[in-house]
Amino acid sequence: MFQVRQTWISVAFFLIVPALRPLAAQPGSESWKDQGIVDVTRSPHAKLHTIPIRAITIDQGFWAERRKTNLEKSIPTMREVLIANGRMENFRRLSGKSKAAQNGPVYGDAHVYKWLEAASFALQSGDVPELHKATEEIISDVVAVQEPGGYLNTYYVEDRASQRMLPAVQSTGHELYNIGHLLQAGIAYYRATGDRKMLDAATRFFDDFIIKSYGPEPDKKPLVSGHPGTELALIELYRMTGRKQYLDLAGYLLRGDSERMPFPQSRYVYMFCGIPFTSRTQLEGHAVRAMYAASGATDYYLETGDPAYWKTLETLWNDLTKSKMYVTGGVGSRGSGEAFGDPYELPNSRAYGESCAAIGNMMWNWRLLLSTGDARFTDIVERVLYNGLNSGMSLSGTTYCYRNPLEYAPESGPIRNSWYTTNCCPSNIQRIFSALPGYIYGTSGDGVYVHLYQNSQLDWRLENGVGLKLSQHTNYPWDGTVDITVTPALASEFTVYVRIPAWSTTTKVAVNGQAMSGVKSGTYLPIRRRWAAGDKLRIQLDMAPKVLTANPQLADDSGRVAIQRGPLVYCLEQLDQNGVTSLSDVAVVLGRNPGSEFRPELRRDLLGGIVLLRHEGVVTQKKLSEEPLYQLFEPVSQRITRPADLTFIPYYVWANREPSAMQLWVRYIQR
Amino acid sequence: MFQVRQTWISVAFFLIVPALRPLAAQPGSESWKDQGIVDVTRSPHAKLHTIPIRAITIDQGFWAERRKTNLEKSIPTMREVLIANGRMENFRRLSGKSKAAQNGPVYGDAHVYKWLEAASFALQSGDVPELHKATEEIISDVVAVQEPGGYLNTYYVEDRASQRMLPAVQSTGHELYNIGHLLQAGIAYYRATGDRKMLDAATRFFDDFIIKSYGPEPDKKPLVSGHPGTELALIELYRMTGRKQYLDLAGYLLRGDSERMPFPQSRYVYMFCGIPFTSRTQLEGHAVRAMYAASGATDYYLETGDPAYWKTLETLWNDLTKSKMYVTGGVGSRGSGEAFGDPYELPNSRAYGESCAAIGNMMWNWRLLLSTGDARFTDIVERVLYNGLNSGMSLSGTTYCYRNPLEYAPESGPIRNSWYTTNCCPSNIQRIFSALPGYIYGTSGDGVYVHLYQNSQLDWRLENGVGLKLSQHTNYPWDGTVDITVTPALASEFTVYVRIPAWSTTTKVAVNGQAMSGVKSGTYLPIRRRWAAGDKLRIQLDMAPKVLTANPQLADDSGRVAIQRGPLVYCLEQLDQNGVTSLSDVAVVLGRNPGSEFRPELRRDLLGGIVLLRHEGVVTQKKLSEEPLYQLFEPVSQRITRPADLTFIPYYVWANREPSAMQLWVRYIQR
Repeated sequence: MFQVRQTWISVAFFLIVPALRPLAAQPGSESWKDQGIVDVTRSPHAKLHTIPIRAITIDQGFWAERRKTNLEKSIPTMREVLIANGRMENFRRLSGKSKAAQNGPVYGDAHVYKWLEAASFALQSGDVPELHKATEEIISDVVAVQEPGGYLNTYYVEDRASQRMLPAVQSTGHELYNIGHLLQAGIAYYRATGDRKMLDAATRFFDDFIIKSYGPEPDKKPLVSGHPGTELALIELYRMTGRKQYLDLAGYLLRGDSERMPFPQSRYVYMFCGIPFTSRTQLEGHAVRAMYAASGATDYYLETGDPAYWKTLETLWNDLTKSKMYVTGGVGSRGSGEAFGDPYELPNSRAYGESCAAIGNMMWNWRLLLSTGDARFTDIVERVLYNGLNSGMSLSGTTYCYRNPLEYAPESGPIRNSWYTTNCCPSNIQRIFSALPGYIYGTSGDGVYVHLYQNSQLDWRLENGVGLKLSQHTNYPWDGTVDITVTPALASEFTVYVRIPAWSTTTKVAVNGQAMSGVKSGTYLPIRRRWAAGDKLRIQLDMAPKVLTANPQLADDSGRVAIQRGPLVYCLEQLDQNGVTSLSDVAVVLGRNPGSEFRPELRRDLLGGIVLLRHEGVVTQKKLSEEPLYQLFEPVSQRITRPADLTFIPYYVWANREPSAMQLWVRYIQR
Repeated sequence: MFQVRQTWISVAFFLIVPALRPLAAQPGSESWKDQGIVDVTRSPHAKLHTIPIRAITIDQGFWAERRKTNLEKSIPTMREVLIANGRMENFRRLSGKSKAAQNGPVYGDAHVYKWLEAASFALQSGDVPELHKATEEIISDVVAVQEPGGYLNTYYVEDRASQRMLPAVQSTGHELYNIGHLLQAGIAYYRATGDRKMLDAATRFFDDFIIKSYGPEPDKKPLVSGHPGTELALIELYRMTGRKQYLDLAGYLLRGDSERMPFPQSRYVYMFCGIPFTSRTQLEGHAVRAMYAASGATDYYLETGDPAYWKTLETLWNDLTKSKMYVTGGVGSRGSGEAFGDPYELPNSRAYGESCAAIGNMMWNWRLLLSTGDARFTDIVERVLYNGLNSGMSLSGTTYCYRNPLEYAPESGPIRNSWYTTNCCPSNIQRIFSALPGYIYGTSGDGVYVHLYQNSQLDWRLENGVGLKLSQHTNYPWDGTVDITVTPALASEFTVYVRIPAWSTTTKVAVNGQAMSGVKSGTYLPIRRRWAAGDKLRIQLDMAPKVLTANPQLADDSGRVAIQRGPLVYCLEQLDQNGVTSLSDVAVVLGRNPGSEFRPELRRDLLGGIVLLRHEGVVTQKKLSEEPLYQLFEPVSQRITRPADLTFIPYYVWANREPSAMQLWVRYIQR
């Protein structure tokens, strides 16, 4: 009986599939409402596909809180701050609506466009009339500035118009970078509302101003991205329109045109563009540029399957994860040039770790995940999201980190600010939080992928068209138990791919109470069976605190450990440590089984509600800052110390109280 | 009888003193032959005075070998290299002797002047006809270029003449820096030969070109050093001539004139000049500039006794020794801007540690020693000399380090080169080696100071005029026993100040076999007695290898130790370690009494003759470079290792064989 029914359903699938894909010959998803964060529905080399943001509801729990703050505080106040700092006046003056002078840097337009994208992603989760209206007003001011020839920029106008797209300006002037962000915002707004006006404006810039006059053809002028980012916007436009000219332009930018656009070698390093992407062998130069370039190159691979791209992407990913990424997922360790450092150059207090670079890292790994379905990429997406990116926005939602150091002294000045002259990071964080529902699940030809754990309701369909609801209940990341109720519209056989995070050393997965075998950290566990409405999937992740060490070649972390529980990396803030006058004097005391000795404590009253970790430590009696620079060897364990109870908090909540020293990698001694 | 004789001699002193100081009313020492490295004979705030180089002969032993190489190989080959690279053509073309085009950077003239100073110091130890002739030829080509108005520079000529001394050029163009080096060379040549022509040319530049038109007076144009160094040259000129205008000009440059010469704050940081030296609170910016500025400021203090200068010098010295100096004495850890880093920012493989900055550190501490007689400054002079400066010249004497890292991988490229486009370091090292005899001893009103230990013969006089010979016999730094025969021309009471290095934990000092009490590390032991011809002074220094740790705030050295024996810091070169494929995998195993477990081994056949140190170590079986960036905690002591016999060599001889990895701070485990 069971067997017969299954066969019948399989047959039914075959009948349904063609009926549900009438638009398969056309590019892009069936409608703007069905398009995910990126729409790889028709991308020939995408193993996984995205789910539209509106199909997932996050209603309570960890990210519900952060997203509520994002929607109610961050996005509205950032609009005010942008306006107060003259970013909108730059547009309004060109329409005669303002008498203000041009104000701000060459990439000032992108500050507005990123806000528009953040707002648009928010609107994809459901209309918010006031936000919708505010967005409309800004869009209207932006598109009003577009010139008949398609050019749209508030900096290279009037006296500066003659500098447009000069080779030196292409290298530093951010014209393509700005318009790439307008295009991304236009796509997000279209996917929120079906309204094309911002999308059309950005498209016209490319159609009428760029593609007519610039490109690899001998009769056209050469191009360089200057600051990559446009590539991934162009490929998304290709996915929506099917017009290959956008893919080709992205490919041209990824190859560079160094013969016709020669720059000093150091400039190619810094820009991470201008020479063939496939000639790169390491991450170097400006970190945000490198991450956006890698994201665009992965998009290009998703469409073309070019093996040279994949080889380079693998090489760069290994370089990233083997020697150039912070344990927070942050990247770009050098302040000078906002750049990647040498291998293992990952200082803590001097860590740059720009929020935008972390976001780029997440965007890149998300695209690598779509290409492969490989959980090693999801591990990075989650690490960045919960730590090095999450730290970038205060709990209040109104101040932001540009840098995300792993050690901090208050004397170095405030780390969270409501505004930066280079205001790239704040709305970049906002757009990720707005888009977050779209990162939780994915689909493949044979089923559905559970990427992230979060209280949420999915109401979507399998790729064969059968409706699917997934109801996820969890107190993750504070608790490791995740209950998912699986409700297909039609009981049928398909695979639920359950992500087992690499950090979860021992994980239990059960379906309707029956334990699953083959669970392995750092993979997706495929559960192929006949799923029927109300089936219960329970995942129990290993929430024992983990004590991490860094490769000894990472000198700055030598003799130190980092603490991680679930996806969250922890740190010490001085104000939580009783009787400690300097974190430099502290060491954590590790026994034989170090992780088990941490005492988790749920504190709903503290920092928006967190689990903190307590552990035995010591404080040296003599302040280390008073000790000489060099002295005769005396192991830390022989110093005169007194015990101290150490309190660790999740890294992402640091710097949300009065200024206090912070330390992520903590010295240890062994008992 | 004894008592009576002593009294008689004291009376005799009073009779002799006036007779020996007939020129006391005139500035400077009695003759060019009597002037030391700096001539502080009349400096009111000098506690110690220098001894002319020619009064000390170094005939065998450690520095005799290095100085022989310097004189016979380095200085002659550098002359050829300078000529081959067009540095002399820049002068000869302006006299019509060459048709070559201007060649090289704005500070190219200083490359020639530093060589002239190195050669001149060498000639102070005795004439070398061939070198004397070569020097004369070059001086002749240099002074021929001086314009009637005093200007002398091969870069700001012809089309560039209109840029001379423009504010931006003062900041970057090195005009004063170049001429400061010509002045230093002119002084050294005068002290070698009595010939004033180079000295007069440099003086004319200041008299006729600078002082007439530039200065603090409202009717003159303002000045900024741009690259300090000129200040100390000007003060030496003041000491020689007694003309206060040079001291005042140096004081003006040390104060800066920021109202009339405004630059961005970052430029004042980088230049370490342009704002009052006494407003500085930390070492920052370009390290060579900072060290030369501090040297000049100490010279200014020696003449004026201005307490504000002394306060700043103390503040900066504490900043240096507490958090910004490598264990080699090297300074300036950042490649970007060749700059001082933050406190405790002292990375090893990325260490910049420019040879010129180490030299500046030695010059500064030498002047602080002259101001105070305090052994803490001599400790730094010795540390720099034997390590971070000594490493800068190869054993062959023909290649040089610009950077002096504390860890090195051959893949990063050759570290010793025969020539640099910015060729500041090679002749800078040469001048220190040439001047070395002048650093060994000093005098004070009551006796003689023994600063450094080196086989040598002193033939000079006490400040009361009584002749004094000191004959020093030692195999230092390989052996800790130093025998000094004291031979005053007249048996008399005076003090011999014997330096007890800070690193010498247990030191014995005996006079004629009788042990002295009160010996204390890091001080001068004053031995006041009636000294008679043939008195024997024996110093036995503690040559037990010392294991050093860095302050835990210096993250890069955490979990690591450095080895020092006598004044020499040691390192590992991979080619000496049997069966080790990567120094990253090595740890030294320390027991209860770590220093005693090193096995010194004198090897006359190796690297010019050295004492190497052997010690038990381990190599991890799994290569650390293959381990992940972050992983679950597992102490190094629990890794699977195999024993390895480690061989340490003195740091200064590294990179004198085939390219090989090097590491100074070595990981340790405890037995």
